[in-house]
Amino acid sequence: MTYCVGIRLNAGLVFLSDSRTNAGVDQISTCRKMLIYEKPGERFMMLMSAGNLSISQSVREILQVERLERPDAEPLTIWNAQSMFDAARVLGSAVRRVYQQDGAALKAAGLDFNASFIFGGQIRGEAMRLFQVYSPGNFIEATREACFFQIGESKYGKPILDRVLVPTTPLDEATKCALISMDSTLKSNLSVGLPLDLVVYREGAYASDQHICIDEHNPYFNMIRSTWGQRLREVFEGIEDPQWSGAGGATPLRTVSNRYEPLRKVTHSGQLIV
Amino acid sequence: MTYCVGIRLNAGLVFLSDSRTNAGVDQISTCRKMLIYEKPGERFMMLMSAGNLSISQSVREILQVERLERPDAEPLTIWNAQSMFDAARVLGSAVRRVYQQDGAALKAAGLDFNASFIFGGQIRGEAMRLFQVYSPGNFIEATREACFFQIGESKYGKPILDRVLVPTTPLDEATKCALISMDSTLKSNLSVGLPLDLVVYREGAYASDQHICIDEHNPYFNMIRSTWGQRLREVFEGIEDPQWSGAGGATPLRTVSNRYEPLRKVTHSGQLIV
Repeated sequence: MTYCVGIRLNAGLVFLSDSRTNAGVDQISTCRKMLIYEKPGERFMMLMSAGNLSISQSVREILQVERLERPDAEPLTIWNAQSMFDAARVLGSAVRRVYQQDGAALKAAGLDFNASFIFGGQIRGEAMRLFQVYSPGNFIEATREACFFQIGESKYGKPILDRVLVPTTPLDEATKCALISMDSTLKSNLSVGLPLDLVVYREGAYASDQHICIDEHNPYFNMIRSTWGQRLREVFEGIEDPQWSGAGGATPLRTVSNRYEPLRKVTHSGQLIV
Repeated sequence: MTYCVGIRLNAGLVFLSDSRTNAGVDQISTCRKMLIYEKPGERFMMLMSAGNLSISQSVREILQVERLERPDAEPLTIWNAQSMFDAARVLGSAVRRVYQQDGAALKAAGLDFNASFIFGGQIRGEAMRLFQVYSPGNFIEATREACFFQIGESKYGKPILDRVLVPTTPLDEATKCALISMDSTLKSNLSVGLPLDLVVYREGAYASDQHICIDEHNPYFNMIRSTWGQRLREVFEGIEDPQWSGAGGATPLRTVSNRYEPLRKVTHSGQLIV
């Protein structure tokens, strides 16, 4: 499996991915899921992928040379696209090309054409944009209201993102949030594993110099891992336990209005009373 | 969808379920997913169900009259079983009976035989036991190391259970933990909804009088909902933001040993450098 999260904030973009790839739990390997396409000073694009590794590796390779034919213009590529939307269309086309190549054979082998991508960045003259691209090559864009995308094992790590992220969140805080989200995922799903790749892009930079590979020796991530769990326990213990009666001024669990009898099948000495 | 959690502690059992049933988001209804089978003073059994509602309702109905033929003994039922293990076998048999009745027709309609159950309780003379029963009627039992089961939408609410629950957890604390787990699930999955059914069973009681239906007016659950999210934010804000350089004594995100260059495809004026 995989867990990747991409976040679009006013201040920039945050990308975080794990690096575990597996075919069953008895075949685990490490594979980077992040690739930067960059023309320094002009365009910065980041691709993260999840799903069938043969598909995503093919897409990554094809994307840099993919050409979308246009009437009355030279073919569209990620290197000449004037907008991230057009670059996402090129990515969609690359996904469809791999589908044409491999889809039928995968289907014959009983395998889905399973791949998903987070694709974001900035091209000079345009704001930063962030997309999620599906296996048919179609895509959706992050908005102010929904400013992050997840691919792969997304559920364990979603609650903290939901609670914290808004477009005005600073980059450092969003980075911390992504790492906590990853920590929850690592704890719950063995098929997501270290090392992590983290890239932070600052609005208007058209290049990134904030990138890091986080392994089990990283002091900050280790601090997060131990502190978050411990503080969560403290918060948990700080919340009062339920009092069934509400005696002693506690917030009552049971009140007069919500007394009820659960559904019950009762027998007294063999006679069933429904 | 559904979310149910069942917990086995030294002190007793905790059962919590939501009550939303849906066939697509445009067809939502309320349905209780908990059913108690009880012979006061002798046996207390609790069934929670997830999956196709027609299957789980049929199983619930059949379970109370299901008979497993035995050589040299009267047929085994949940009312005469001497152990919860045998009662779980009767449940498995009830599930298989529904499969025999409906499995082929469901398959013809392109539907999986999708149902799962949490089944726990205590029969006089035996310790409390807790089982998860799958759609083929087979089952597993909770252990000291894995003392809870979840069915339905399990992922959002699993991290807090993982962090808190051990067999020595008191019943009130486990109830609080289950409610927080449910809160995270409600926040993230619309197909899980109020009201909740909560039943707490104390070891050796052979009946339960702690049961409650929790709706949007429940003061304790509302306290949990507002407090947990707010405290989580406070903890989040209390953890230091990452410092890329580790300047000023902060825990560094980047250290000398883990500087690295991400995979990059770079072009300077058209020439691609891989």
